[in-house]
Amino acid sequence: MPNYRLQIAYDGTAYAGWQIQPDARTIQGEIEKAVEQITGEAARVHSSGRTDAGVHARAQEAHVILERTDITPRRLQGGLNALLDPDVRIMKAWKVADDFHARFSAIGKEYRYFIYNSDPLPPDKRLYVTHIKKPLNVADMRSACEILQGEHDFASFSANPNREIDGTVRKLYELTIRKKGNEIAIIASGNGFLYKMVRSLAGHLIRVGAGEVSVESTSEILASRIRTARVPTAHPQGLFLWKVFYKKKMEREKRITPPA
Amino acid sequence: MPNYRLQIAYDGTAYAGWQIQPDARTIQGEIEKAVEQITGEAARVHSSGRTDAGVHARAQEAHVILERTDITPRRLQGGLNALLDPDVRIMKAWKVADDFHARFSAIGKEYRYFIYNSDPLPPDKRLYVTHIKKPLNVADMRSACEILQGEHDFASFSANPNREIDGTVRKLYELTIRKKGNEIAIIASGNGFLYKMVRSLAGHLIRVGAGEVSVESTSEILASRIRTARVPTAHPQGLFLWKVFYKKKMEREKRITPPA
Repeated sequence: MPNYRLQIAYDGTAYAGWQIQPDARTIQGEIEKAVEQITGEAARVHSSGRTDAGVHARAQEAHVILERTDITPRRLQGGLNALLDPDVRIMKAWKVADDFHARFSAIGKEYRYFIYNSDPLPPDKRLYVTHIKKPLNVADMRSACEILQGEHDFASFSANPNREIDGTVRKLYELTIRKKGNEIAIIASGNGFLYKMVRSLAGHLIRVGAGEVSVESTSEILASRIRTARVPTAHPQGLFLWKVFYKKKMEREKRITPPA
Repeated sequence: MPNYRLQIAYDGTAYAGWQIQPDARTIQGEIEKAVEQITGEAARVHSSGRTDAGVHARAQEAHVILERTDITPRRLQGGLNALLDPDVRIMKAWKVADDFHARFSAIGKEYRYFIYNSDPLPPDKRLYVTHIKKPLNVADMRSACEILQGEHDFASFSANPNREIDGTVRKLYELTIRKKGNEIAIIASGNGFLYKMVRSLAGHLIRVGAGEVSVESTSEILASRIRTARVPTAHPQGLFLWKVFYKKKMEREKRITPPA
C-alpha cells in the first residue's frame, strides 16, 4: 500500500476550487479521475487543505494511498500530467511513509496575495492578480501588517468563525508586503489559517492602503473578534497557496525516494 | 480629423491574430468594433504590422484617424478598455500629428521569444512560453546569435521570402539570450522583420541549443538563402511583440498631448 506525496501547481481560473463536488469541475475531482484511469483504483487524494474557486496554487501538497498499485513516483507523475489539462501540473512526486498525511502532518503554510496597482492591467497578468487602480500607500499597509503579525484571535478575519473546530487563534509567522514596480505582494505564513483568512487580511490591507480605513482601525477590528462588513474579502484570483511546511525531520526521515 | 496613436497590449491566445478577417475574432476587428461603438465612425485602425494567431503583444502600436470625432486620448482609451475584453488593453493613447503612421513611421521593432526549459511547466506560464523539456545549451545558442546579428539576407529564416516586396535583407541590431532560472528569453531587435522571421530564428536557436544542429550550420543556412525544413517555425505562444521604435525626433515633435 504505497503512499505517494504529490506537489501540485494549478491555475484555479477554470475550477470550482480544490474539493470534489458532484456537478462541478474541481482540482481534486480531476486528479482522482486521472489516478483511477492510470491505476484502476478509486483512491482519495487528500490535500493540505481546500482552496476556493478561482484560487491558484504554486505548491499545494497532497497524498494518495494506492491499495493495489505500486508504480514509481516518476511514472505516476508523468501519467497524471499526461491526462490532466495543462492548468493543473504535478510538479513533484515522492513515495512517503505510511503516516505522512498532507493535512495532518503539515505544520504551517505560506500564501501570497498579488495586487496590480496601476491602470490599465497588462493582459498576461489579468488571471493572477487583483487589479486596484487607486494608488495604495504601502507604508501604511506595512504598519497594519505589523499589528497583525504574531499570535492572535483572528475571528474578525474569518468568513465563518463558528465552523472552526479548533478555535480561531492562529499564529502569523510573517505578514509582509513586497513591492516591485506596479506589483504588490502580500506574503502570509503561519501555523494555520481560518476560512478565507488570507483574503480577509488582503481585503483589509487594501482598504488601509487606499486610505479608506486607518492603520489604527486594524487593532480595533482584531480586538473585536467579530467579523463585520468592515473587512471585505479580496477577490480569489490574486491568491496563491505558495508553500506547505512539514517538519524537516519528517521530510528527511520519511522520504523514501527523492523527488522525481 | 485628429490622429490618435494607441499602444496596445494583448494576450493573443483567443484571437486569430491582429488582422481583421470576416469570420474570425481578431485584435484589429475587436478594436475597430469598439471604436465604432464609441464614435459612430467606421474607422480603420492601422498597426505597426500584423501578428499571427496566438502571438502576444506587450506594446503593439497603432493609429486611427477619426473624421468627425474629437475626444481626448484619455476618453478614447477609457472607452475602448471598457468595451474590450481584458485580454486586449489600450496601455497608452496620444493625439499625434496627421502624418504619424504606425507602420510607415516605424524605424524598428523588438520582439521577445520566451522558452520554459524544464518539466513540468508551471500552469501560470503555459500561455506565454514555449515548453522545451530537453536542457538547452545556452552558450551554443549565444554563439549562433552572434552569427545572425547584423545585416544579412534572411531569406532562409522567412516563411515566404517571395512575398516580401522590399527584399529579404534586414538588420538585426540585437539578437541575444537571457536566462533566468528555467526561463530563456530570445531578444531580437532590428530595422524590420520578414514574415515569421522571429519564430524561424527561435526555431533554429532551439535546435542549436538542443544539439540537433551545430552552431556552424547557422552560417550555412544563412548563406543558402533558401528556406527549407531544416529551420522549424517555433510555436506562436512564446512570442511577444515587445516594442516598436519611432524616431525620437518624431516622438518629441509630433506628439501633441502627453500619454494619457
